[in-house]
Amino acid sequence: MGDNFACLDDFEKHALSVLPKNALDYYTSGAGAQTTLEDNKRAFSRYKIRPRFLRDVSKRDLSTTVLGEKISMPIGISPTAMQRMAHPEGELANARAAEAMGTIYTLSTIATSSIEEVAQAAPKCVKWFQLYIFRDRSVTIDLVQRAEKAGFKALVLTVDAPVFGIRLADVRNRFTMPPHLALKNFTSLSMTKFDDKIEGSRLTGYVASLFDDTLNWEDIKWLKTITTLPILLKGILTAEDAVLAVNHQVDGIVVSNHGGRQLDSTFASIDVLEEIVNAVGNKTEVYLDGGIRDGTDVFKALVLGAKMVFIGRPALWGLAYNGEEGVKKILRIIRHEFDTTLALCGCCNVGEIKREMVVHESHHSKL
Amino acid sequence: MGDNFACLDDFEKHALSVLPKNALDYYTSGAGAQTTLEDNKRAFSRYKIRPRFLRDVSKRDLSTTVLGEKISMPIGISPTAMQRMAHPEGELANARAAEAMGTIYTLSTIATSSIEEVAQAAPKCVKWFQLYIFRDRSVTIDLVQRAEKAGFKALVLTVDAPVFGIRLADVRNRFTMPPHLALKNFTSLSMTKFDDKIEGSRLTGYVASLFDDTLNWEDIKWLKTITTLPILLKGILTAEDAVLAVNHQVDGIVVSNHGGRQLDSTFASIDVLEEIVNAVGNKTEVYLDGGIRDGTDVFKALVLGAKMVFIGRPALWGLAYNGEEGVKKILRIIRHEFDTTLALCGCCNVGEIKREMVVHESHHSKL
Amino acid sequence: MGDNFACLDDFEKHALSVLPKNALDYYTSGAGAQTTLEDNKRAFSRYKIRPRFLRDVSKRDLSTTVLGEKISMPIGISPTAMQRMAHPEGELANARAAEAMGTIYTLSTIATSSIEEVAQAAPKCVKWFQLYIFRDRSVTIDLVQRAEKAGFKALVLTVDAPVFGIRLADVRNRFTMPPHLALKNFTSLSMTKFDDKIEGSRLTGYVASLFDDTLNWEDIKWLKTITTLPILLKGILTAEDAVLAVNHQVDGIVVSNHGGRQLDSTFASIDVLEEIVNAVGNKTEVYLDGGIRDGTDVFKALVLGAKMVFIGRPALWGLAYNGEEGVKKILRIIRHEFDTTLALCGCCNVGEIKREMVVHESHHSKL
Amino acid sequence: MGDNFACLDDFEKHALSVLPKNALDYYTSGAGAQTTLEDNKRAFSRYKIRPRFLRDVSKRDLSTTVLGEKISMPIGISPTAMQRMAHPEGELANARAAEAMGTIYTLSTIATSSIEEVAQAAPKCVKWFQLYIFRDRSVTIDLVQRAEKAGFKALVLTVDAPVFGIRLADVRNRFTMPPHLALKNFTSLSMTKFDDKIEGSRLTGYVASLFDDTLNWEDIKWLKTITTLPILLKGILTAEDAVLAVNHQVDGIVVSNHGGRQLDSTFASIDVLEEIVNAVGNKTEVYLDGGIRDGTDVFKALVLGAKMVFIGRPALWGLAYNGEEGVKKILRIIRHEFDTTLALCGCCNVGEIKREMVVHESHHSKL
Ligand SMILES: Cc1cc2nc3c(=O)[nH]c(=O)nc-3n(C[C@H](O)[C@H](O)[C@H](O)COP(=O)(O)O)c2cc1C
Ligand SMILES: Cc1cc2nc3c(=O)[nH]c(=O)nc-3n(C[C@H](O)[C@H](O)[C@H](O)COP(=O)(O)O)c2cc1C
Ligand SMILES: Cc1cc2nc3c(=O)[nH]c(=O)nc-3n(C[C@H](O)[C@H](O)[C@H](O)COP(=O)(O)O)c2cc1C
Ligand SMILES: Cc1cc2nc3c(=O)[nH]c(=O)nc-3n(C[C@H](O)[C@H](O)[C@H](O)COP(=O)(O)O)c2cc1C
Repeated sequence: MGDNFACLDDFEKHALSVLPKNALDYYTSGAGAQTTLEDNKRAFSRYKIRPRFLRDVSKRDLSTTVLGEKISMPIGISPTAMQRMAHPEGELANARAAEAMGTIYTLSTIATSSIEEVAQAAPKCVKWFQLYIFRDRSVTIDLVQRAEKAGFKALVLTVDAPVFGIRLADVRNRFTMPPHLALKNFTSLSMTKFDDKIEGSRLTGYVASLFDDTLNWEDIKWLKTITTLPILLKGILTAEDAVLAVNHQVDGIVVSNHGGRQLDSTFASIDVLEEIVNAVGNKTEVYLDGGIRDGTDVFKALVLGAKMVFIGRPALWGLAYNGEEGVKKILRIIRHEFDTTLALCGCCNVGEIKREMVVHESHHSKL
Repeated sequence: MGDNFACLDDFEKHALSVLPKNALDYYTSGAGAQTTLEDNKRAFSRYKIRPRFLRDVSKRDLSTTVLGEKISMPIGISPTAMQRMAHPEGELANARAAEAMGTIYTLSTIATSSIEEVAQAAPKCVKWFQLYIFRDRSVTIDLVQRAEKAGFKALVLTVDAPVFGIRLADVRNRFTMPPHLALKNFTSLSMTKFDDKIEGSRLTGYVASLFDDTLNWEDIKWLKTITTLPILLKGILTAEDAVLAVNHQVDGIVVSNHGGRQLDSTFASIDVLEEIVNAVGNKTEVYLDGGIRDGTDVFKALVLGAKMVFIGRPALWGLAYNGEEGVKKILRIIRHEFDTTLALCGCCNVGEIKREMVVHESHHSKL
Repeated sequence: MGDNFACLDDFEKHALSVLPKNALDYYTSGAGAQTTLEDNKRAFSRYKIRPRFLRDVSKRDLSTTVLGEKISMPIGISPTAMQRMAHPEGELANARAAEAMGTIYTLSTIATSSIEEVAQAAPKCVKWFQLYIFRDRSVTIDLVQRAEKAGFKALVLTVDAPVFGIRLADVRNRFTMPPHLALKNFTSLSMTKFDDKIEGSRLTGYVASLFDDTLNWEDIKWLKTITTLPILLKGILTAEDAVLAVNHQVDGIVVSNHGGRQLDSTFASIDVLEEIVNAVGNKTEVYLDGGIRDGTDVFKALVLGAKMVFIGRPALWGLAYNGEEGVKKILRIIRHEFDTTLALCGCCNVGEIKREMVVHESHHSKL
Repeated sequence: MGDNFACLDDFEKHALSVLPKNALDYYTSGAGAQTTLEDNKRAFSRYKIRPRFLRDVSKRDLSTTVLGEKISMPIGISPTAMQRMAHPEGELANARAAEAMGTIYTLSTIATSSIEEVAQAAPKCVKWFQLYIFRDRSVTIDLVQRAEKAGFKALVLTVDAPVFGIRLADVRNRFTMPPHLALKNFTSLSMTKFDDKIEGSRLTGYVASLFDDTLNWEDIKWLKTITTLPILLKGILTAEDAVLAVNHQVDGIVVSNHGGRQLDSTFASIDVLEEIVNAVGNKTEVYLDGGIRDGTDVFKALVLGAKMVFIGRPALWGLAYNGEEGVKKILRIIRHEFDTTLALCGCCNVGEIKREMVVHESHHSKL
């Protein structure tokens, strides 16, 4: 098995058959009726590629530069919580795979490996740290300082989670972490483990009691006072918020709906990408995650203005398959698909990608 | 079971497995091919939410004011006939649940509990009385006077039922009430029970013989002469009728297609809401029912101009599950979902909801 | 059984379970991939009704006047070939049912009962005769003269069949008539029976050898010279041909795609109705058939400009169920549905139907 | 069996049940998620035909003239690789069938029969040779000279394959040719067989090592220096490339997405046809392949501007059914369907086909 895994979905199918229900439900779920979760994938198929031929595509280069760092390809790893539920080496294996493939790994605040462990496991990897802001601001200050010290290159502030989305399977499972795991970025028991007396998803209870739901634009100013790292906002979905982000001088925006896990029945992230790119112009870099499953998805996002894209769940399926090797295999497959797409579109590198190379499927029905 | 019911649809699934066929078919059915019934739900998924972030949403207040009465949330209970088929305490349990949750209960004319019983069961509940006009106008005058006396706060005149829609399952079942139940708002035998000699649905026969199909705008004037209660029209589906309603100085409009039970192949109620809101401006309050199944539906209806929404069938599923407790559980779930939606959209209360927070799914395909 | 048949589709389901494969396939089939066949039905669901309320609808009258004849409702019977495959009394039973219900029966040229037998069976019925033109024009002249003599009120010239559509099931079945039946409008053996040496559908072979594929607009002039009956063209699908029809002074147009049996992948008939109605203005009457299955379909066709509609297959299912009684039952059901639709739209008669009462489903997505 | 095959899809179903998995997967597969593959077929159903009636269609002529050669119908055979996996006589049987039916056969570079064998098998057939350009240009020069000598009438340069699309089933199968077959247009072992040490599809490995991915517009000029045959470009999908093709004075364009096998998530070929036809005007001939499965598809492509169409897979299913006879049967069926479509649209020949005879399905929803 695995030998003939040919695309990212093959790894998902495998994970569905091997992971325990509690973890699997947590990983796969979207919020509510999961329309946004499904749309994240389906929306890509509504964009059609217009390929150009008879161009010399023999010398292709997939690398790009993000926040001034050169990476080998415009495909990185999104932050996902508790990766050790997928594989004993969790975040460490994932980061090592990103390192090996020359791309970015984003570590979640809610990780089962600590900032320092990850830094040590993948010292040369371009690492970003995803930040949730705790009511107790000293917790956040501590996380930021440790991330800086450990050589992380950017802070990814997740803005779409003042409260947590309602993921029905987790409510039904009364989701909690397996007992042998802990949230390794903290020390106090109440922050490393979930309170099992809470009804429904215990993670949601954890978030409700510890995360700061007063978080607002003023806090961006505050965050800038406690760090010199670039600050990215993850979860922006409207031109209005994108403009505010520019006005607050953030260094980047991740267009994302949190993999369909926060507000159900918002748009697929690819559907709002261009609205945001147009709103910010070249004043900040824009990235995207949500539903990226093959190389044509990557290409479409780049055409519509993303500087790079990130994958969340697929890396978890890679971990579940075979730890670091599994994630590397996934990254190699999607890299090869993206490379093939570039060649079949007559492009040698991401700089040759042009806006007219993608149109909405409704384009021809308007003729 | 029930312990892990996480959303309203879980209660529907349960009801489908426990209610007897005759009652279940009556409750679930829509008219004809049931396209409007299905569309009532599906249509919501065609509206997409544009959420705003980085706003302090720590202090949320779901309350609103309807016809001058403050209620705890913009979600009430629609009138549905014969609720004792779902639970021995029927209307009483339903009204008590609304009372406990601080919202509006609407009692149907065709109820298996009387006006007075309901008033006594839930004295503090804001109660509305849904009116059908009988050929014998003295029947209607009696109902109106009793509702006034019992402290009901408004009359909801259902305008979409001059004749009853053709609900195929009821025709096939030759639907009738179980023998131990009666329509408790009346006294004469011919009005408390259905005539079993009629072909097809006996309820339809009942309606055809007793309801007034000459009902017209002049009767609104007459109704105003016999009551001082606010008058709402339930079932308006066009801007044209909405304007007439304003001209006849009604106090509110319930945009509704009777849960898809009257005219099949009309629009989903959410699809016509804005046309009506635009037509009436702020000259009267507009509410909506039909297909509301979770908190995002409530949010969308409010964005498109509804002052509040009502649920019909879900309350019946709550009753079938566990009487008053079941309905309370349903109301708590949808309240929590609506609260979460508000927070994830950057709103602290219904006043902060803005028109641009919802667009049609076709929005981005037009770019 | 049958007692609880509540809609026309119930009769179709019944027919599917009782008719022999050869006849059933012939009756149900559309041409090619059957996209037009399916679309004929589905297209109706894309038109949405905008109902008006609070109008006195107590006195309803479904009658209408077609070609100067008053009929009890705007729903008649389309010509369908070989009706005795569905019931021993075939065309006779069908015509009697139309007579009993006060509406129009159209007899096919390719009938298993003769013009004279039908006239005798249903003397008071408003009968139309559907005409195919044979290479041997004396055959046509004979048919026309006999129809006139037998009191038929109009000739319905089918224009969409210069050759026959390819109906795959008939090709596979090598469709032929059961041996005990004959085409009763003819006398010579070669015209009453199909040639069994032909490959594929023998009906198609029959048509290819006998029907006149030179038929053109000049022949309309010729037809007018041999009859004083009104001439209707059945099968017109474009404004261009409708204008030509007016120029050739025909008395009516039946918008029809032959129940999806001729050219697959043309539009549903309801989809082209308005284009044609607009093209002809009030210069000729326009009717429609294809996919009419319930009362809302009838209403929509009338809103979009049809003077009346016809049903083809449903009458065959009525025959298969119970001969004349079966067809009467079907006509009563759809009449009742249409009556209910009128009432729920605030109309007392067909004259009160207004154009704004139907819009395309895409209407609201354009806002 | 086979006796009652009534349409092209019947042959596909048969092939699915008889061919070995390795060959079948290779024949059926599209690239990636196969959305383009599926869309190639489905897209046709989105175009609707507007038929005209009452025209004398008794004398029909399906012939047309392509690159100055008269052929019996506007339906030819696309190049497909390795046809002997479907039938022992492979390309020879296919070419003979085209010859018998008076239409064009296109031989693939990657054939299991040689240029000379095909020329000998079907000397009177109008044969085209499909060209892939090898890094080693002497290979290409040899192929061109042999095709010229063998009487082929045109060179079809495939431009959409600088690298090969990722066909998942072939990757999983590690697709290779059965050992008894060889690529007969070459002599050196490395070119007649695939290297079995390659991972994934060995054909893809073959292409990657031998085909010239520097191919560009300058090479068109070079190609013109080594041949006097007309040059067609196969795989053009945008107006931009079509204009370049005209500027480089090619003799024809085959609008094609390689049967969905190269870049997944590009448009169906029928969807881009008109954009290209409009761009080139009458400066070059335009043909189409991809998803042609019945006579209405052919008609639609001609309405939208194609001079003729080609079928790829259906000919393989014909071969699998019964070699030359199977392909002839397929060509007879689709010819008959196209003939019937012409008649039902009021056309006697391809010259009478007019642009207004096809509209997009969204046409009427815009009213
Ligand atoms: C299991 C899981 C856990 C996640 N945890 C976090 C998290 O801790 N912080 C965060 O900002 N996003 C989190 N996300 C969202 C991801 O960063 C990312 O936005 C999303 O997974 C992208 O969509 P995809 O899974 O379709 O690639 C999580 C997503 C998943 C599936
Ligand atoms: C079983 C049932 C009985 C109903 N009875 C009445 C009634 O007596 N009077 C009335 O105005 N509406 C009646 N309705 C319509 C509801 O008031 C309401 O419009 C509809 O149920 C809302 O749609 P929902 O069920 O999707 O929430 C009934 C609906 C159902 C399902
Ligand atoms: C079994 C069958 C036989 C038909 N025979 C004829 C015929 O002889 N002449 C004709 O003009 N139309 C014929 N039609 C077409 C019908 O007149 C009519 O256009 C079509 O059935 C209407 O669609 P519906 O079946 O969806 O109601 C036939 C249709 C069917 C289903
Ligand atoms: C099995 C197979 C092999 C093919 N081989 C070639 C080839 O060698 N050269 C080429 O230009 N196109 C090749 N094609 C593409 C076809 O020429 C053609 O574009 C496509 O099959 C048309 O779509 P259809 O199969 O839906 O008719 C191949 C297609 C298939 C299905």
